[in-house]
Amino acid sequence: MTSHDVQAAPLAVGLGESLLRLSAPGHERLTQIRHLDVHVGGAEMNGLIGLAALGFRCRWLTRLPDNPLGRRIAGHAAEHGVEPAVDWDADARTPLYFVEHGAPPRPSEVLYDRSSTAMTRLTASTFPWVEEVHGAMVALSTGITCALGPEPAQAVSGFLAAAREAGAHTVFDVNHRARLWTWEQAVPVLRRVLPKVEVLFTSRHDLLRLVVGATAAEDTVELARQAIKEWGHRVVVLRDNAQSAPGRVTVTMTALTAEEVLTSGAHEAQVVDAFGAGDAALAAFIATWLTGGGLAGALEASAWACAFQHTVVGDAWQVRAADLEGRGQAWRILR
Amino acid sequence: MTSHDVQAAPLAVGLGESLLRLSAPGHERLTQIRHLDVHVGGAEMNGLIGLAALGFRCRWLTRLPDNPLGRRIAGHAAEHGVEPAVDWDADARTPLYFVEHGAPPRPSEVLYDRSSTAMTRLTASTFPWVEEVHGAMVALSTGITCALGPEPAQAVSGFLAAAREAGAHTVFDVNHRARLWTWEQAVPVLRRVLPKVEVLFTSRHDLLRLVVGATAAEDTVELARQAIKEWGHRVVVLRDNAQSAPGRVTVTMTALTAEEVLTSGAHEAQVVDAFGAGDAALAAFIATWLTGGGLAGALEASAWACAFQHTVVGDAWQVRAADLEGRGQAWRILR
Amino acid sequence: MTSHDVQAAPLAVGLGESLLRLSAPGHERLTQIRHLDVHVGGAEMNGLIGLAALGFRCRWLTRLPDNPLGRRIAGHAAEHGVEPAVDWDADARTPLYFVEHGAPPRPSEVLYDRSSTAMTRLTASTFPWVEEVHGAMVALSTGITCALGPEPAQAVSGFLAAAREAGAHTVFDVNHRARLWTWEQAVPVLRRVLPKVEVLFTSRHDLLRLVVGATAAEDTVELARQAIKEWGHRVVVLRDNAQSAPGRVTVTMTALTAEEVLTSGAHEAQVVDAFGAGDAALAAFIATWLTGGGLAGALEASAWACAFQHTVVGDAWQVRAADLEGRGQAWRILR
Amino acid sequence: MTSHDVQAAPLAVGLGESLLRLSAPGHERLTQIRHLDVHVGGAEMNGLIGLAALGFRCRWLTRLPDNPLGRRIAGHAAEHGVEPAVDWDADARTPLYFVEHGAPPRPSEVLYDRSSTAMTRLTASTFPWVEEVHGAMVALSTGITCALGPEPAQAVSGFLAAAREAGAHTVFDVNHRARLWTWEQAVPVLRRVLPKVEVLFTSRHDLLRLVVGATAAEDTVELARQAIKEWGHRVVVLRDNAQSAPGRVTVTMTALTAEEVLTSGAHEAQVVDAFGAGDAALAAFIATWLTGGGLAGALEASAWACAFQHTVVGDAWQVRAADLEGRGQAWRILR
Amino acid sequence: MTSHDVQAAPLAVGLGESLLRLSAPGHERLTQIRHLDVHVGGAEMNGLIGLAALGFRCRWLTRLPDNPLGRRIAGHAAEHGVEPAVDWDADARTPLYFVEHGAPPRPSEVLYDRSSTAMTRLTASTFPWVEEVHGAMVALSTGITCALGPEPAQAVSGFLAAAREAGAHTVFDVNHRARLWTWEQAVPVLRRVLPKVEVLFTSRHDLLRLVVGATAAEDTVELARQAIKEWGHRVVVLRDNAQSAPGRVTVTMTALTAEEVLTSGAHEAQVVDAFGAGDAALAAFIATWLTGGGLAGALEASAWACAFQHTVVGDAWQVRAADLEGRGQAWRILR
Amino acid sequence: MTSHDVQAAPLAVGLGESLLRLSAPGHERLTQIRHLDVHVGGAEMNGLIGLAALGFRCRWLTRLPDNPLGRRIAGHAAEHGVEPAVDWDADARTPLYFVEHGAPPRPSEVLYDRSSTAMTRLTASTFPWVEEVHGAMVALSTGITCALGPEPAQAVSGFLAAAREAGAHTVFDVNHRARLWTWEQAVPVLRRVLPKVEVLFTSRHDLLRLVVGATAAEDTVELARQAIKEWGHRVVVLRDNAQSAPGRVTVTMTALTAEEVLTSGAHEAQVVDAFGAGDAALAAFIATWLTGGGLAGALEASAWACAFQHTVVGDAWQVRAADLEGRGQAWRILR
Repeated sequence: MTSHDVQAAPLAVGLGESLLRLSAPGHERLTQIRHLDVHVGGAEMNGLIGLAALGFRCRWLTRLPDNPLGRRIAGHAAEHGVEPAVDWDADARTPLYFVEHGAPPRPSEVLYDRSSTAMTRLTASTFPWVEEVHGAMVALSTGITCALGPEPAQAVSGFLAAAREAGAHTVFDVNHRARLWTWEQAVPVLRRVLPKVEVLFTSRHDLLRLVVGATAAEDTVELARQAIKEWGHRVVVLRDNAQSAPGRVTVTMTALTAEEVLTSGAHEAQVVDAFGAGDAALAAFIATWLTGGGLAGALEASAWACAFQHTVVGDAWQVRAADLEGRGQAWRILR
Repeated sequence: MTSHDVQAAPLAVGLGESLLRLSAPGHERLTQIRHLDVHVGGAEMNGLIGLAALGFRCRWLTRLPDNPLGRRIAGHAAEHGVEPAVDWDADARTPLYFVEHGAPPRPSEVLYDRSSTAMTRLTASTFPWVEEVHGAMVALSTGITCALGPEPAQAVSGFLAAAREAGAHTVFDVNHRARLWTWEQAVPVLRRVLPKVEVLFTSRHDLLRLVVGATAAEDTVELARQAIKEWGHRVVVLRDNAQSAPGRVTVTMTALTAEEVLTSGAHEAQVVDAFGAGDAALAAFIATWLTGGGLAGALEASAWACAFQHTVVGDAWQVRAADLEGRGQAWRILR
Repeated sequence: MTSHDVQAAPLAVGLGESLLRLSAPGHERLTQIRHLDVHVGGAEMNGLIGLAALGFRCRWLTRLPDNPLGRRIAGHAAEHGVEPAVDWDADARTPLYFVEHGAPPRPSEVLYDRSSTAMTRLTASTFPWVEEVHGAMVALSTGITCALGPEPAQAVSGFLAAAREAGAHTVFDVNHRARLWTWEQAVPVLRRVLPKVEVLFTSRHDLLRLVVGATAAEDTVELARQAIKEWGHRVVVLRDNAQSAPGRVTVTMTALTAEEVLTSGAHEAQVVDAFGAGDAALAAFIATWLTGGGLAGALEASAWACAFQHTVVGDAWQVRAADLEGRGQAWRILR
Repeated sequence: MTSHDVQAAPLAVGLGESLLRLSAPGHERLTQIRHLDVHVGGAEMNGLIGLAALGFRCRWLTRLPDNPLGRRIAGHAAEHGVEPAVDWDADARTPLYFVEHGAPPRPSEVLYDRSSTAMTRLTASTFPWVEEVHGAMVALSTGITCALGPEPAQAVSGFLAAAREAGAHTVFDVNHRARLWTWEQAVPVLRRVLPKVEVLFTSRHDLLRLVVGATAAEDTVELARQAIKEWGHRVVVLRDNAQSAPGRVTVTMTALTAEEVLTSGAHEAQVVDAFGAGDAALAAFIATWLTGGGLAGALEASAWACAFQHTVVGDAWQVRAADLEGRGQAWRILR
Repeated sequence: MTSHDVQAAPLAVGLGESLLRLSAPGHERLTQIRHLDVHVGGAEMNGLIGLAALGFRCRWLTRLPDNPLGRRIAGHAAEHGVEPAVDWDADARTPLYFVEHGAPPRPSEVLYDRSSTAMTRLTASTFPWVEEVHGAMVALSTGITCALGPEPAQAVSGFLAAAREAGAHTVFDVNHRARLWTWEQAVPVLRRVLPKVEVLFTSRHDLLRLVVGATAAEDTVELARQAIKEWGHRVVVLRDNAQSAPGRVTVTMTALTAEEVLTSGAHEAQVVDAFGAGDAALAAFIATWLTGGGLAGALEASAWACAFQHTVVGDAWQVRAADLEGRGQAWRILR
Repeated sequence: MTSHDVQAAPLAVGLGESLLRLSAPGHERLTQIRHLDVHVGGAEMNGLIGLAALGFRCRWLTRLPDNPLGRRIAGHAAEHGVEPAVDWDADARTPLYFVEHGAPPRPSEVLYDRSSTAMTRLTASTFPWVEEVHGAMVALSTGITCALGPEPAQAVSGFLAAAREAGAHTVFDVNHRARLWTWEQAVPVLRRVLPKVEVLFTSRHDLLRLVVGATAAEDTVELARQAIKEWGHRVVVLRDNAQSAPGRVTVTMTALTAEEVLTSGAHEAQVVDAFGAGDAALAAFIATWLTGGGLAGALEASAWACAFQHTVVGDAWQVRAADLEGRGQAWRILR
């Protein structure tokens, strides 16, 4: 693909924060660390990376500290085909999190260290939304960005509103992070965002909190339908990852529209690194659906992508369209 | 915990040898080695490390070569909260063992290189036992130390006798090492030690050798009851680890007193590094039991700890009381 | 074993190419590589390494580039007990292949880079075949060497013919490599080689192509019998590796002679590195069979070796006769 | 810098090949390799990376194999701020070279493996030159690309001619690679290219070959003046790196125009990795000169950059304008 | 040394913060990091580690986050013979800093990330000073702890005052950190602390700021004499590290009392890792001086220790008394 | 070189012990080790490896433990072209030594752990000397083997006597190891060996001990002449390595015959790993001298080889004849 072909590709724009993930190597414990593995992740950027691999032109709006760690994050996006549009901050902290990979019955541990980061200073006027979403086919953000503070939440609203206005498909993943905000804090904020969302990635657990008057007695389909009715989503997508054996996960996904309920096949994976799996599911769904793969095809691709991403070291889901089609082989001789 | 709180914690004292474990990385074979991973292990020290993590003040009596490798071993104990009380030896060898981690059907291999070490020169007068066990709630040693020679065996006897005299709970793990001594050599020595033991960690296989007149026809409970009758133990604890699938182990434990027989639930683990699992079981049992957790609670904690330790790189079991209580989660967001 | 004992060992001679295997570490993807693990492999050399470990004196005929990478390959053979008899080539390329280790559902990927290598310039007169096979008990080559070009294929014929003439057991593994040649190209060449083969390692898939007039309706035994009838093989051996669960493989093997059909037990293995497993099977079969282990014994050893080799990092199968006999243990205390 | 600021930056376009550098770690020898370090380098891409760090918008025209290794190379450019405009080739080889880092008196060794790569199939019509250089301030190529074959050489001519026509500054580094072509082959080809070159990076050794009628008796200034006279260059830049002690290099540079001869100060560096140093010099010179730093300023920046790049692991020179100005500190507290 | 001998050793107590140092491996740049090396450092803890190696019993008063990273830091102190007396904080951040090791002319870079750490919440009543310094021969803190905030500064005053009262030698290192506070903020705070200091480690640069009415015209001896006069120090020690060649440093030290001025010899070192060198100097000085080595002996030991520590990976200076005496050998055969 | 050419090469036979060298990585200290680098070394085997690289056929007589570590050592010799003729010992220890690489002023440290190894059980009848040296051009041993015990010393005598009888050049390196024996123990043993030695590698320091009646007043030439007179050596070679700067060494060598005294040029090297340098000197001298390079040529090659080997990771000196001739380049483009 030359630079000129690139210009012809559909544009996806995302808004969100990415962090340095510092992991104890292998199954070592954080109390033992002499070395750390460094990865970069962030829901929106991860989703854009997946879209870029499937042929989208992607731009990622973010704020980063103007230091080598901030540049490390921006370089990661660029390396994976996503153009970082960064509002650099001379003083802010780099968002970090520390990870210990468990093994049953030892839990994996995550220690966030993301206070006072550049993205917490995002405001509704950091980026000229109308200009940034111009020509976009997709606009993507998540509840994590909303959780960074009232100003960032307002920015997400502004971004999605501008996108919808410009005719883009708006995509939102609820992604509740209990360490960032409580459900009490989250619900009113998210309810203001949801009317701007065309494709919603969420879970039964989220819907019980978000849908007005929801009760545990209602089944998931009913809850999703209420969300559709209330906020006008075109599709609601629910992911389910269950541990099928120590070291293995089985992924099944469900998509609901006002008329349809579709469930994917079950895809089992050997867990190498679980991070980024939900974002891979989102990217595969959006890319397949928007390029004419149909809802069922998009859902199946999405569940497979989610399983696949559990086997990949790091958050970046880099699968090409041909891989998506040829899934199922155990060996691939490239040449 | 400040230094002052530490003084208030219950004291556990152990006597034993620790070794440098030199392992081929990952699943590599020893015939291939270009690098070795270095760990430190030793049954008694491992047990004390587990106790220290659960709030005990721990002291470890040992002899080590007065060289950087000996200091590496002492530093390991200290790093994990155990005070090394070392009788340094200017000339002795450092105990070593080489490990190759197999994968079914390839066996793991262990090559000991522990002749002429400092602890083989331990004598009944190396340490002033009465002074060392003063104020101790727990005194701990194992059959490995007895196997190092007649003098070390006598030291174990002296140590446990002094501890019992001082009112400490005496704990002993039979831990037969066939490369160090035969059962013919071991039985008379161990029978001299056993009357000083309050809590005995052992196996059916051991009891068949140790109990006078035992026959393969007797069931395990019967054998343990005979041991209790003969040597006056308060509790006998038996561990059972079975490979439930390639790369997985299932742990079940049994505790017997003169009146009770209790069996734990089965705890399955993904095996990352099997070393130290038995010592973790011992530590969890003793700490739970002596801090009021009850026999059944202690046994369950012990079996879980044993399973857990199969997932940890290295021998050091470092679980805090809160972890022990909160067991069962797959993910833990620390912050 | 002193140098003098070595002279008394049976001699095996092989002809083939070895490659540098450059693998992304662990489960990393090739698009991510910052480091590569370097291994050496090649079907014939691998087979000889297995025979050497079981007591054979082995010589490997090959061509290599006269540069550090070629010497790295020759050193690998020598390190593992195989004498490299190299016709050095000042200009040729080093054969390479790049590997990404997948995890279900992500396929493993292999990218060959083996054009213009030294072995593609092998001719029927590179080595004095009669001299090289003098005194050999076994002569070994594979279809991979035939696939390197018409001249190498002719060299294989010359080598096996000379070996048979000299009274050696000739062993051949079909090993079709679709990236090197099509079945259309392969069939006439292999049919010229097969009449010189005493022990044939192959698969149902191969036989359907090779046996004149074979149809998918025929069962495997029937196909193998036709091959025996047509080309006069003494034994035909078929391997079957099936993924029994993510990360596990189960190996079963079948041996056929004109009179007998034998099937091995099923041997399950945890997959660490699948490369070289077929070559291990070949080596275990040949060594056991030729040293009096009987056909059933050889087949069982072969299936176990194939399973075992899935657990070994690298292609070199290094199991000693005692291991082969003592198979089944989970732990081995060497000392 | 947001995406909108990026559009305002000056544009540099380069044409050239990049390779995977596979190095023995540290000072290990290639005959010993168990691991290889992977870097990406290529003169033109390296130069563009340096320009991107100093604020240019950069586009790199190249051909790469359409496989994970090709994508690894493209990802490297993107990570470092250079947009790869790739004509993907389904069949071609990935260019490789193997490196052993010596230490005096042991020489460093380089083993190229770059035959049949995608760039050898570059033709004069692979890219639409006029379109690609539209709006460019700088156009950059080197003699290495010319050495890949007659067609690539013609492509370089077409590219530079179009650039000059479009008003861009054309930059060319002679960079003779004796393994790719002889001087006899190179001279007529380069002489056809040179009239299109505004800024020429070269050496006395090159000029003796290239300048018609040059003799060893002429001094370097005289030779450069003849080149200027013959081919109309605006500036000729000459680099000199001398080993000042084992593990250290001292860089001095000279720039000549029709009127001036300037020599930089001597910059000493500790050699960590010498690759990419010449390209860093080029980038620093061009960026400084074209952004108003003056010829003397550009030359001093260039020599410092060349020294600096000897201390960087990998080929990518990533220095920001502020670093270039603040050079000379031993420690930098970023925050 | 047994636990009983330990009780007889002189006691040193320190108060300060330690950080996780996260360094790019080797000479890699922070913008490139895929891995980080983890070390633990902190001026006061480093000093205590040096004293512990030379036979002191050491206790380190600190606050740490109650998470695995906090425990990693406490474990480091314990491993190196220093008893951590920790006031654990459930919510605070772990202090971090990121390091890039330069090579001339590339500067080393340090990026601190130490806001909102547990020690910033230290108050004058966190520890019972009188109790903590009871029986201490040495009490040690630095200006870094004072810089963490007004409350921590008051705690340092309380600690040193209690120590002096209890008859301990009080030791203080000015260690100005410009990223933590300005000289304007520091001067009044430090001037309140200095009257409690018996042994002061400082520099000419510090004294120019601290001494009332100091001017650049005064020589260093004069400035130190004024400090002695004003604040009653018994000794003032000044360190000087100069880069003698790329990759080498030469250390010279000066000690002043009211009567004497002593200068050490120049000690050259190959720089492997510069961190902790000043703290090693402090430890060697204090231990030698207080154990009867005399002022000149202490100064020489101190300069050598400072040079030595430049060659050690990590901050921990672990030299035994015998090494200190036997300095000067190139090889040491331990056995 | 094919197997047939190999048969035509001159044969060198050596007798000696090799050890596993376990080194702290980089400049880490042994007290810190979490990993160890594994190398294999031994004076005689190292010498044979150097000869093998220069075209000799080499056989190494030794005893090794029959375990994976013993096989690791034998594999190292074979990998580097030396045929190991091993008398395997089922029970013996593997010889080990631990190394810490210092940096001035920090000394390198070596901790030997070589008691009770297989070679200490070597006797005069372990190998059939006459048979083993049959056809040898060179026979090589050292004082280290003599130091392993009276029996091994007798074996060395038997070996060298048989070699001389068979017309081989006998080569002996005094190589006194103070940890293995005192000079008092060594002198009578070595004096019995020396009359069988044709080429003696030694030092002034050795000669002062060995030569009867030697005094410190005599110059080195005089001492060597006395040795020649007393024991009939044809050549005496003396090595001198001086540290010319931190991290650098300068090598000069001297050769004496009854008539000549030759001194080599000074060869400076950057020290990467000093081990094996003396053995490289021996190999280069012997190979050059015996293949017609003349005494001066052999001495110059020897000093260069000794310098060169200081730059190589590990003990194996692997330089080909062409390298030896082409010495002096800083870069070598192999292709």
